[in-house]
Amino acid sequence: MTIKIAYLGPAGTYTENAALNYSHWLAQKRQEETQLSPYPSISQTLHAVADRQCDLGVVPVENSIQGSVAITLDLVWELNSLKIQRALVLPIRHYLLSYGDNIDDITRVYSHPQALAQCQKWLEKHLPQAEPIAMNSTTEAIAQLRAHPHTAAISSQRAAQLYDVPIVAENIQDYPDNATRFWVLGPNLESYGDQLSLGCSVPVNCPGALVELLQVFAQRKINLTRIESRPTKRSLGEYLFFLDLAGDLRSLEMQAAIGELKHHTEVLKIFGNYHILSLQDCPSS
Amino acid sequence: MTIKIAYLGPAGTYTENAALNYSHWLAQKRQEETQLSPYPSISQTLHAVADRQCDLGVVPVENSIQGSVAITLDLVWELNSLKIQRALVLPIRHYLLSYGDNIDDITRVYSHPQALAQCQKWLEKHLPQAEPIAMNSTTEAIAQLRAHPHTAAISSQRAAQLYDVPIVAENIQDYPDNATRFWVLGPNLESYGDQLSLGCSVPVNCPGALVELLQVFAQRKINLTRIESRPTKRSLGEYLFFLDLAGDLRSLEMQAAIGELKHHTEVLKIFGNYHILSLQDCPSS
Repeated sequence: MTIKIAYLGPAGTYTENAALNYSHWLAQKRQEETQLSPYPSISQTLHAVADRQCDLGVVPVENSIQGSVAITLDLVWELNSLKIQRALVLPIRHYLLSYGDNIDDITRVYSHPQALAQCQKWLEKHLPQAEPIAMNSTTEAIAQLRAHPHTAAISSQRAAQLYDVPIVAENIQDYPDNATRFWVLGPNLESYGDQLSLGCSVPVNCPGALVELLQVFAQRKINLTRIESRPTKRSLGEYLFFLDLAGDLRSLEMQAAIGELKHHTEVLKIFGNYHILSLQDCPSS
Repeated sequence: MTIKIAYLGPAGTYTENAALNYSHWLAQKRQEETQLSPYPSISQTLHAVADRQCDLGVVPVENSIQGSVAITLDLVWELNSLKIQRALVLPIRHYLLSYGDNIDDITRVYSHPQALAQCQKWLEKHLPQAEPIAMNSTTEAIAQLRAHPHTAAISSQRAAQLYDVPIVAENIQDYPDNATRFWVLGPNLESYGDQLSLGCSVPVNCPGALVELLQVFAQRKINLTRIESRPTKRSLGEYLFFLDLAGDLRSLEMQAAIGELKHHTEVLKIFGNYHILSLQDCPSS
């Protein structure tokens, strides 16, 4: 049976790269056949899985430079039916694409705002004359190049191949350890691993509520690898907390921690217990 | 001496509304004269203050629906010279502006992506036929209306007055308690109040590091009102923490807490100790 995978498209985006790598891994390790479908937004990607049009969805959740992708966290909280099956970590390498012969002639650089931000220092040094212009995706940026001479786009190596545009500079990201974490989400399947993600709300106006919650894990030596707050949308100053922890939900110690956590939270949602897969940045197909 | 105040412009934005209210408050309470200057981005607003072109800068830091404004947190961490002088809380009320007579004829609605998101349910119910189109600011959205018939913009009441566009629907935001918190930032002036904001990094790969840090305040009954994490930009999974606490930096207990905090953090930066000013949403001038 072919597994249908929704991803934040279009083809050539870093999310497609992550989805392709994951698809390749499923074929190699589990002899699973997959079919990839691009969706124009994170919301549409996740709704396609919640509505059972697709079996799995791949969306970005965190970049090492820009931080959390808020809409992903908000939707995983709202759409109770989605569970994290796996996390994918992809190194992000940006390339400058142009049909022009001389980069000194470039007057405009198109890309997604995050990609422009991640190459800001490189652009200031090598293309001080060029104006950065924000587009909805790195792929949409490439679509501008043919119509406008003396322009360039920042995108992935895969997009350069896919749309047949020459690469004029490689690895132009300002920070060498630029990486993005994606979540593979699916319906309520049983899954276990060494990473546990959960979300919760705590009683309002209760000093120390967050500390008590974190102590539940600290006193059991369970490592908290990430904490993120998001507004409850009820009132300014009320938050949901998103926690990532190292551990298996089946272990006695984690079971005890989750049991105790219920006394310190108003609403508690387990998003998934899964493994992390580290990906290369080259397309595997 | 006139106080020069930079703000995230252009005129008619919610940030201008906050800056106008603050300016009015300075005139009433402190007999200070002020002059407001719009800047096109948060980065340019804060650099104008850091470079001493302006005395103060007003930028958004958090919305009750959308959450933190990441660029503001990142810049206050990077530009060590800026300190929070005051926080402003402004209720956000969105208005639908159009030259058309009938809202059923509207085919496009222009606004800032956050404003569109904050009115999504209202738009789906009342204007299901209209396409939402993202603009750089709510004011830029208004600029589209004259050229394109059958269009509307989501903006503030102040912008409707300023640009003389009829209001066709009011209070269209999905959540009634929609509010935005702004920071008034200035150079290293001495300022005290009942709110303390700080940022810090903790030793990497140290389980329980965050708990120890929060315990410093919890054991002294100092209320943590907000915690936000931002990437260090070095490596995926390394974070800076931004904390808001209720307390005066001059108190013995807060002094002791900050002293102890130095043992649990790598880098510790105090962003300011200030009061919150609650504003009305109507322009005061």
